[in-house]
Amino acid sequence: MAILKGFQKLTHVDEALQTWLDILQVKKRGETTVPLNKALNRILATDLIASGDLPPFDKSAVDGYALKAEDTTGATQFKPITLHLTNTQEVGAKQAQQIWTGNPIPKGANAVIMLENTKKTNNELEIWTQLARNGNISKKGEDVKKGENIIQAGTRLKPHHIAMLAAMGNTQTKVTKKPQIAIITTGNELAQAGTTPATNQIYESNGIMLTAMCQELGAQPTYLGIAKDDLTEITQKLKTALQNYDAVITSGGTSVGGLDLVPDAVNNLGKPGVITHGMALRPAMPTALATLNKKPVMILSGNPVAAIIGFETFARPLICKMLGMKHTEPRPQVNATMTRKVATTLGRKTYVRVKVTQKNKEFLAEPVSARGSGAISTMTRGNGFVIVPENREGITKNEKVLVHLFGTVETT
Amino acid sequence: MAILKGFQKLTHVDEALQTWLDILQVKKRGETTVPLNKALNRILATDLIASGDLPPFDKSAVDGYALKAEDTTGATQFKPITLHLTNTQEVGAKQAQQIWTGNPIPKGANAVIMLENTKKTNNELEIWTQLARNGNISKKGEDVKKGENIIQAGTRLKPHHIAMLAAMGNTQTKVTKKPQIAIITTGNELAQAGTTPATNQIYESNGIMLTAMCQELGAQPTYLGIAKDDLTEITQKLKTALQNYDAVITSGGTSVGGLDLVPDAVNNLGKPGVITHGMALRPAMPTALATLNKKPVMILSGNPVAAIIGFETFARPLICKMLGMKHTEPRPQVNATMTRKVATTLGRKTYVRVKVTQKNKEFLAEPVSARGSGAISTMTRGNGFVIVPENREGITKNEKVLVHLFGTVETT
Repeated sequence: MAILKGFQKLTHVDEALQTWLDILQVKKRGETTVPLNKALNRILATDLIASGDLPPFDKSAVDGYALKAEDTTGATQFKPITLHLTNTQEVGAKQAQQIWTGNPIPKGANAVIMLENTKKTNNELEIWTQLARNGNISKKGEDVKKGENIIQAGTRLKPHHIAMLAAMGNTQTKVTKKPQIAIITTGNELAQAGTTPATNQIYESNGIMLTAMCQELGAQPTYLGIAKDDLTEITQKLKTALQNYDAVITSGGTSVGGLDLVPDAVNNLGKPGVITHGMALRPAMPTALATLNKKPVMILSGNPVAAIIGFETFARPLICKMLGMKHTEPRPQVNATMTRKVATTLGRKTYVRVKVTQKNKEFLAEPVSARGSGAISTMTRGNGFVIVPENREGITKNEKVLVHLFGTVETT
Repeated sequence: MAILKGFQKLTHVDEALQTWLDILQVKKRGETTVPLNKALNRILATDLIASGDLPPFDKSAVDGYALKAEDTTGATQFKPITLHLTNTQEVGAKQAQQIWTGNPIPKGANAVIMLENTKKTNNELEIWTQLARNGNISKKGEDVKKGENIIQAGTRLKPHHIAMLAAMGNTQTKVTKKPQIAIITTGNELAQAGTTPATNQIYESNGIMLTAMCQELGAQPTYLGIAKDDLTEITQKLKTALQNYDAVITSGGTSVGGLDLVPDAVNNLGKPGVITHGMALRPAMPTALATLNKKPVMILSGNPVAAIIGFETFARPLICKMLGMKHTEPRPQVNATMTRKVATTLGRKTYVRVKVTQKNKEFLAEPVSARGSGAISTMTRGNGFVIVPENREGITKNEKVLVHLFGTVETT
């Protein structure tokens, strides 16, 4: 028989996270090399130092004619100046040479006149405008200087970063290896999708959800399946997970009750085991953090929304550290105005689900109401969280709040 | 010799896009089935209609004892009421039955008292608090009702959507097929990364950048390589692209100049060919839109930033339509305050690159300055666009602007 116990004390979220990370001393995973067409959303492993200037030479920013700026002084459409066209290596006084966007500036030239400000007749060119030195020239190194740190290690690679890597002549890049995360769900009430649930069962959904959350951050999840509410079965799955993966996430079997076997199983496996159990966090109070074999174990609630919040609060910072990111990657945020008041409990960090809409450049946040805090529909009907801190008892109507977005904002 | 030509008229961006889409009559791509662990960020192909209620039965929201609410009337910690514990199928008057979170409510019970509000002694249970009918019960269907449209077709699947699919018993889902996009870059000045560029060459970077932009939206890009500034070579690559892919994106060879061969090559291949060439858009003025064999051809500038803006403006709405999304998917947006003024040209929609930072819940947008509009470093040093409409001549200092984010916002 399991012992019935309550949480004698709830731990402040920031404190719980810091204590756990201090014990873990998380190290960045190793590096691996990927071709640039597989680099999107991977994390750059080492700073990208410019191997050369960009542009690598003075080049024309327009289609037109390279010439000497001093030869254009006083030219207007009503008082054009005539230059001689040349094809030689060097542009001399009173000469002009046709040039296209991106071409290197020929020797002797120091400006480029745009095609539309000229008229060509045989070997002569009428010019209608005056140019300053370096006019319409992209100077060597004006975009990037050789030796400059252009992309810092820990950056999530987006298309423009990949373009910069390619512009430096790279066909591949070093990225951080994906942290290998084992996921275990527990509970006799769970039926695997694809089977027929018993009358007292529901379909398991946290396994695939936590899989997707790991994928979204750039970790490599492996779902080890459902463990029954049985100490031996849970222990066995935890052992496998700890042997083969960098971190373990469990869901279920952790609230204050008779069948809360996961913390017990973790503690039976070694020291230090569970470090904190019971968070001043709503939903997700029954979350526990543990370490075994110097590996992180996150014991999340079986309630789907509480599992999401537990993941956001503890797995996100952990995975970002494993990926070598400088800070925990924030979700996109937006300032919005609350359409209704929401009450929260003093002393609990609370994740309020809201639906943000945009109207005339302003954002409104409507709380998504639901009787059950665990209702996954509060996520599918919403698109963001407002995080109410421990020292507040709620949010007022018309209050300006910062929303952390997990979905797209519609324009109404 | 190509003909030297200028843009006699620049077309308003919205008009150009609408005309092109009207001619194309873009259809949603077909459907394909993927397992849920491959469904993240794919686009749901058909509405998800709830196949049953969630929860599927009345269940306990807490660990405790199921009982009749009317038996708790008047109970307090100082005046407890004693009930008889039972294990039978039905909970009778003055009876209570132990229950865990998620368990179905036994027949006869209509509320659940939390463990911490009780004291068990042998077969008797002291209760210390009064409950209303349905207290601590998650009612059948309170999360989702059978037949409800829970996730609309065209939704990009995020972890909570995948959880909902699983909660309905699905192991796989129908998603829209990825549009197959061919990418061609053109220009004698381009050297393929991995080779040694000539002194007048730069490394090609738009091919891999556009590849990543397609991947980010959920299309399947294929890079067909660099075509020299040669009508035959460009035509050959375009033919291959049109035969084998759903859409074509080219970059380079489209500004007002002698070597702007791509629009010519497209027009030689058939009707209607180029529909609009020259956009009231900055950067990205030389963008052209075409259709051949009823397939879209987007002719983007060779300038990297102009190629990005051209993609944002025309490829993003097109690909979203091909994916069956109801609207063009917006980037995350944030309201920010400009730290400096920026001048723009009246009559041009202008994409100003900014770096957004967050300080005390407020967002500041600092324009990223650069001499060359094409400098890719304006993207790597920034994280968002402010889109200045055609009827404005710039943005003022301290103006509140809407920023479309392409990168992460740091907290300072």
